[in-house]
Amino acid sequence: MPEKQYLVTPGPTPVPPEVLAATARPMIHHRGPDYRRMLARLFERLPQLWQTANDVLLFTAAGTGAMESAVANTCSPGDRVLVASAGYFGERWAAIASRYGCDVVHLRYAWGETPDAAQIGAKLEEMGGAHAVLLTHSETSTGVVLDLRELAGRVAGSGALILVDAISSLAAVPLETDAWGLDVVVTSSHKALMCPPGLSLVSVSPAALAAAGRATSPRFYLDWETTLKAQRSSPPDSAFSPAISLILGLDVAVDMILGDGLDAAFERHRRLGRACRAGVKAMGLELFSPDEDRAAVVTAIRTPPDLDSSAVVLAMRESSGVTIIGGQGELKGKIVRIGHIGYVDVFDITTALAALEKALADAGAEIERGAATTAALEAYGDGVPVS
Amino acid sequence: MPEKQYLVTPGPTPVPPEVLAATARPMIHHRGPDYRRMLARLFERLPQLWQTANDVLLFTAAGTGAMESAVANTCSPGDRVLVASAGYFGERWAAIASRYGCDVVHLRYAWGETPDAAQIGAKLEEMGGAHAVLLTHSETSTGVVLDLRELAGRVAGSGALILVDAISSLAAVPLETDAWGLDVVVTSSHKALMCPPGLSLVSVSPAALAAAGRATSPRFYLDWETTLKAQRSSPPDSAFSPAISLILGLDVAVDMILGDGLDAAFERHRRLGRACRAGVKAMGLELFSPDEDRAAVVTAIRTPPDLDSSAVVLAMRESSGVTIIGGQGELKGKIVRIGHIGYVDVFDITTALAALEKALADAGAEIERGAATTAALEAYGDGVPVS
Repeated sequence: MPEKQYLVTPGPTPVPPEVLAATARPMIHHRGPDYRRMLARLFERLPQLWQTANDVLLFTAAGTGAMESAVANTCSPGDRVLVASAGYFGERWAAIASRYGCDVVHLRYAWGETPDAAQIGAKLEEMGGAHAVLLTHSETSTGVVLDLRELAGRVAGSGALILVDAISSLAAVPLETDAWGLDVVVTSSHKALMCPPGLSLVSVSPAALAAAGRATSPRFYLDWETTLKAQRSSPPDSAFSPAISLILGLDVAVDMILGDGLDAAFERHRRLGRACRAGVKAMGLELFSPDEDRAAVVTAIRTPPDLDSSAVVLAMRESSGVTIIGGQGELKGKIVRIGHIGYVDVFDITTALAALEKALADAGAEIERGAATTAALEAYGDGVPVS
Repeated sequence: MPEKQYLVTPGPTPVPPEVLAATARPMIHHRGPDYRRMLARLFERLPQLWQTANDVLLFTAAGTGAMESAVANTCSPGDRVLVASAGYFGERWAAIASRYGCDVVHLRYAWGETPDAAQIGAKLEEMGGAHAVLLTHSETSTGVVLDLRELAGRVAGSGALILVDAISSLAAVPLETDAWGLDVVVTSSHKALMCPPGLSLVSVSPAALAAAGRATSPRFYLDWETTLKAQRSSPPDSAFSPAISLILGLDVAVDMILGDGLDAAFERHRRLGRACRAGVKAMGLELFSPDEDRAAVVTAIRTPPDLDSSAVVLAMRESSGVTIIGGQGELKGKIVRIGHIGYVDVFDITTALAALEKALADAGAEIERGAATTAALEAYGDGVPVS
């Protein structure tokens, strides 16, 4: 019998059986009336997840494709943009903007640091403003989640568009698109939206759409105007063959999330983050990601310096069937990361912690054994007394 | 009980239950060893479908995204390209190339005509050569399938890259990438590959890759070099979060197709096309697509001039649960199209014909009743005597 598998990574994330079942329905046509009725329902509810009155555009692509759409549709060669990065995905914003010929001012923080609102505000003043500011709400490579409200507050009023990679944060931690003045907010299906990977979504403000009307960068498949025109048809249509099965799954997942409400989702993720951090600390390991409630997406953990964290990840996978991930880029070999967004409960966390404990002990690391599970459960709490 | 549904369109196409089941497996991670082993197997087998030694690049995107990748990676603004179009998807090549600033010479045939090799050769001479020639192997909007071998033969030797949209033809009708000298051949998952939509694939010749090294058009998500580097890792990797569930399905579908062999697939599609055309003619309807074996992808049928073909499609859907499609662009309202690629057998064809017969009769059209099913079955043939 094959080993039972557990997925505890920050994307892809586990998919609820109801969503899997929807993705496996016999194929239907994307111009048929039932599909288009489903799309109408979906486009009506999606903006609630962004807390916005803006349109949310749906693309069949990885999150990077949607990030690229933000640059290609709002920027022209030579446009001056400010990228604040503190990890792998912040660097990606800078790489995309460079490819499109933007004049990129790159405020580069050490990986694991939290970009600072005052510094970003000062840099923007020093630059005399910018066409756009590109931010990473949740830096999945380090576990850091920005204080996006404060940061956007510093940028707002400068005239710069605010483009946000919220791929791993949307529907996991609070994000108020309209109240915070965010022009473009990108997410993906396989994070807190609990779906398989393959879809990405972008909210676009009126200012972002106006910029798209002027931007000269070439684009076709990721062109916002083309997609918006199709989505605004009545009933909504698709500009290009959409990933029908994944979108049927997304429809179910959105129902599940909004059924409980966004606040419940945020609270659940806060508690999962607390549980994970408490377990890690009880084991005597050092947190790499911040020990704070906002860091509710993924917990990054330093592995003992004499161990290669990639080998730890592989050992967990081989001996326990539990998949977490190691470090990316300059953090490769130094950290492991446990994801806790989407369809995750506290027993996914205790499973990941127990398998980590076992793998580290097997490798001869000096860690506290037998403490992590209980610490995680206590930190999670549930407020429901046993009667 | 909801009405039973039948999908008989040229994309999306019906998905075999084995493929659906693979797409609905609990999620796994794309950096895990089992996923990467599956990728290795997949990338080893995919080129057989193209009949090529070239790499086949896999993108999470609609076919249009892969077509765009062909232009963005091989062309720079000002490059002179020849587009031969005779329908909706040929026009798309021209639109993409225009967006990327190419100098587009557009040899535009009437929709439904078959682009002619001699004319294309003459045009190319008149132009003094071209950077690339953009062709549509199977024009899904009209049902026409090019004599690609002859056409490519005229272009080969001129120094022009040959870029082919084979989205609805690959694995349905013969296509020999290397023998015919095709530099870029694009297809999609939801056509003859029998998968849900959401993936597209592109074979790239050494000449195409060399052009990609020189092309200045901006691209990031659809950049060939980035994807090639990831795919050529050992074991293969993904440049960006891939549509894992769809790729697990593709792995199963490719096994199914290659298990029977490509020649069996071509023969099956030829017979399905014959069956469909025989049924249409037995009903007394006029074919819009050519009455020839090569037109094995989709059969386009003129509807009686006093009927709106879109209404016929809707009526079939409403009264029979059978989904075929109408015309696109200038053919809207004038034709209906029955698809027969992928996981289709002759009883899908007889079902579509029977429902079409019923819808036309209900609408008062003068058609021959009761002849189509038998004509289709006889034209399909199976050579297996009842003992």
